Amino acid sequence: MAKSPETEHPMKAFGFAARDTSGILSPFNFSRRATGEKDVQFKVMYCGVCHSDLHMLKNEWGMTQYPIVPGHEFVGVVTEVGTKVDKFKIGNKVGVGCLVGSCRQCEDCVNDLENYCTKQIQTYSSIYYDGSVTYGGYSDIMVADEHFVVRWPENLPMEAAPLLCAGITTYSPLRHFELDKPGKHVGVVGLGGLGHMAVKFAKAFGAKVTVISTSIGKKDEAIGRLGADAFLVSKDPQQMKAAVKTMDGIIDTVSANHSFVPLLMLLKTNGKLITVGAPEKPQELPAFPLLMGRKTVAGSAIGGLKETQEMVDFAAKNNITPDVEVIPMEYVNTAMERLLKADVKYRFVLDVANTLKA
Amino acid sequence: MAKSPETEHPMKAFGFAARDTSGILSPFNFSRRATGEKDVQFKVMYCGVCHSDLHMLKNEWGMTQYPIVPGHEFVGVVTEVGTKVDKFKIGNKVGVGCLVGSCRQCEDCVNDLENYCTKQIQTYSSIYYDGSVTYGGYSDIMVADEHFVVRWPENLPMEAAPLLCAGITTYSPLRHFELDKPGKHVGVVGLGGLGHMAVKFAKAFGAKVTVISTSIGKKDEAIGRLGADAFLVSKDPQQMKAAVKTMDGIIDTVSANHSFVPLLMLLKTNGKLITVGAPEKPQELPAFPLLMGRKTVAGSAIGGLKETQEMVDFAAKNNITPDVEVIPMEYVNTAMERLLKADVKYRFVLDVANTLKA
Repeated sequence: MAKSPETEHPMKAFGFAARDTSGILSPFNFSRRATGEKDVQFKVMYCGVCHSDLHMLKNEWGMTQYPIVPGHEFVGVVTEVGTKVDKFKIGNKVGVGCLVGSCRQCEDCVNDLENYCTKQIQTYSSIYYDGSVTYGGYSDIMVADEHFVVRWPENLPMEAAPLLCAGITTYSPLRHFELDKPGKHVGVVGLGGLGHMAVKFAKAFGAKVTVISTSIGKKDEAIGRLGADAFLVSKDPQQMKAAVKTMDGIIDTVSANHSFVPLLMLLKTNGKLITVGAPEKPQELPAFPLLMGRKTVAGSAIGGLKETQEMVDFAAKNNITPDVEVIPMEYVNTAMERLLKADVKYRFVLDVANTLKA
Repeated sequence: MAKSPETEHPMKAFGFAARDTSGILSPFNFSRRATGEKDVQFKVMYCGVCHSDLHMLKNEWGMTQYPIVPGHEFVGVVTEVGTKVDKFKIGNKVGVGCLVGSCRQCEDCVNDLENYCTKQIQTYSSIYYDGSVTYGGYSDIMVADEHFVVRWPENLPMEAAPLLCAGITTYSPLRHFELDKPGKHVGVVGLGGLGHMAVKFAKAFGAKVTVISTSIGKKDEAIGRLGADAFLVSKDPQQMKAAVKTMDGIIDTVSANHSFVPLLMLLKTNGKLITVGAPEKPQELPAFPLLMGRKTVAGSAIGGLKETQEMVDFAAKNNITPDVEVIPMEYVNTAMERLLKADVKYRFVLDVANTLKA
C-alpha cells in the first residue's frame, strides 16, 4: 500500500495544498526525502505564483495529482548538501524552477535542453523516480538534485524568484531565435508576468521593443514603467497597417485564443512569431501569411538548466528583476482570484519564510 | 480606353489562354512589348504545367485576370537582347520562373529575396509596370527583364523546366532551414510535382529522406525510383509511433487540408515543419505540440533569383531533373483533368516549340 504524503519520506515538511478541483489551498503536512548524495536541501524564502499554478490547481490540463503543492519558481538558502554535491554548500542562495528531473541521456539532455526531455519530471504534481509525488515551492523546505538547482547571484533579490519560470520562458526564445541583438525589433503581446519580462530582457539585449495590446490603457505602463520603445493597439487598423512588416520577431504570451494572422502581418520576411502561452483550443493558421515572407510560428517552453543559470546571471548583471507584489501565505487564495482577473503587476510572490507557519 | 491584348504591344505573340472560370484553354493571339534596354526576348521551347496554373485558370485564388496565359516554369533560346543587357546573348538557353518584376529596392530585394517583395510582379495574370497584363509560358515567345531571367546550364535538358517552380520551391526551404546536410533526416509529405523534387534535392544534399504518405502504394516508387531511404504510412499508428521525434525537418507539399499534429510529433526538438502548399482553409494548430520541443511551422514560397540560379546550377552539376511527361499543346486541357486527379509522374511539360502552331 502506498504511504501517505505525511509518511512516505523521513523529512517533515509543511506547505499549502489543494485537495480537489476547487483549487482552494490550505495548510498541508507532508514529507520530503532525506538529502541524497547529489541532493541539495534548502529553506524556501520566496516563491512566485505562476498562472500555470492556477491551471494545475483546478486540473485544467487533466494531469494534476491531488493533493497538489504548487510553486515552480522559488528561491531559498541551502541547509544541507549530499556527500557528492559539487556546486553548493550550506548557506548558499539557490533556486528551483519548473524541473527536478530528466533522463540526462537523451539528445535533448545532452544538449542542455532538459526542458524538452520527454522523461522530464516537473517540480510539482509529477511522479519522482522513487514513485512519490513531487511537491513544489509553496512549502517550507525543498530537496532537489543539484543538477536542477540554480546558483542565485548574491546581488539578485530573492523576491525575483519569478525569473525561474517567467524569466527563462521569455529569455530563452529571445536568445534562440536571435532576437537578442541591437537592431532587432521585437514585439511583445500581452503584458502580464511573462510579457513584462520579455520587454525587460529584449530591452537589455539592445533590441527595439513594441508592446502590442488590445487596449491603449497599458501604454504609459509599457513605455514609462517598463521601458518599451513603442506601443501598438491591435484593435486600431490604421496603427496595425502602419506597422506591417516592421518586426523581426514577436513573443506572444497570451493564453487566451486570438488570431495569429494580424501578428504575422507585422513580421518582416523571415520573421518569427513565438508563442509561449498555451491557448486551450487550437489556433487557426492559414497558409498564405506564412508563405508570403517565409514566416515562422514556433513554440518555446521554459529553458534548460544551463540557460536558466545564464539567465539569472544576466539578470543580476543587468539589474533585471520582475515587478512583484509580495504577499503572505494566507493571502494565496485571494491572489489566485486576482490572478484570474489579471489584477497584478506583474507577479505575486509568496513571502514563504516569514509567513508560512506550521 | 485600354488596348486589347492583341494590340497593346508591337510584338505579335501566340499562345493558349483561358477566358473564364471554366479554365478551358484555347488558342489566343496577343502581343508582347518590344525588347527594352534591359530585356531579353526568347523563343519558348518547353513549359511546365504547375498545379497553381490550374488554380489560377479557374480563379480559385480570386486574383485571376482574364484572358490568362499560364506558365511560370519555362525555358527557351534567346532571340534578341536589349542594348544594356550584360548577362545574355542571342542563342543562350534561358529560363523564366514565377517572377518578372519586383521593386529592387526594399529589404527583401536587396537581400536577393525578390520572391518576398510585396511589389513583386508575377509571370502571368499580374499587372506589369506599363499597365499591361503579364502572360506566361504557354506561348511562343517571351520578353523579360534580364534580372528575372536565369541562365540555363548547357548540360541540363530544357524539358527540366519545372525546376523553375517545383525545383526552387523545395530547394529553397531545404537550404534556408538547414536541412541540406549529411546527418539530417528530412521527411517529405506528398509525392507530386513538388514532393518528388524535395526527395531528389534532399538526397543530393546527403540527408536521409523519408517519404510520408497516406498509403503504402507509393512505397516502391519513393524508394526504388526516387531514391528515398524510408517510407512512412501516416495512417499506420504503429509506424508513426516508432518515428516520433526522429526528423529534423519536414517539407509538406500537400495542398489539401490535413492535420499538422501527427507531423509535428515526428520532429525532434527544434524540428521544423515547412509548408510549401497552400491549403484553402486554415490549418488547426494546437500550442502544446509546438511548445514541447520548440518546434516550428513555417512557410516558404519559391525563391529569389540568385538562389534560383544557384539551384539550376546545382541541378545541372548533380544531374537532378524532374520526372516529366512531355505533352503537345493540344493535350493541355486533358492534362489539366489528369492533374486534378494527380494522374501524372510527376510534372507535365508542354513541348511548346514543336507543337504550338498559330
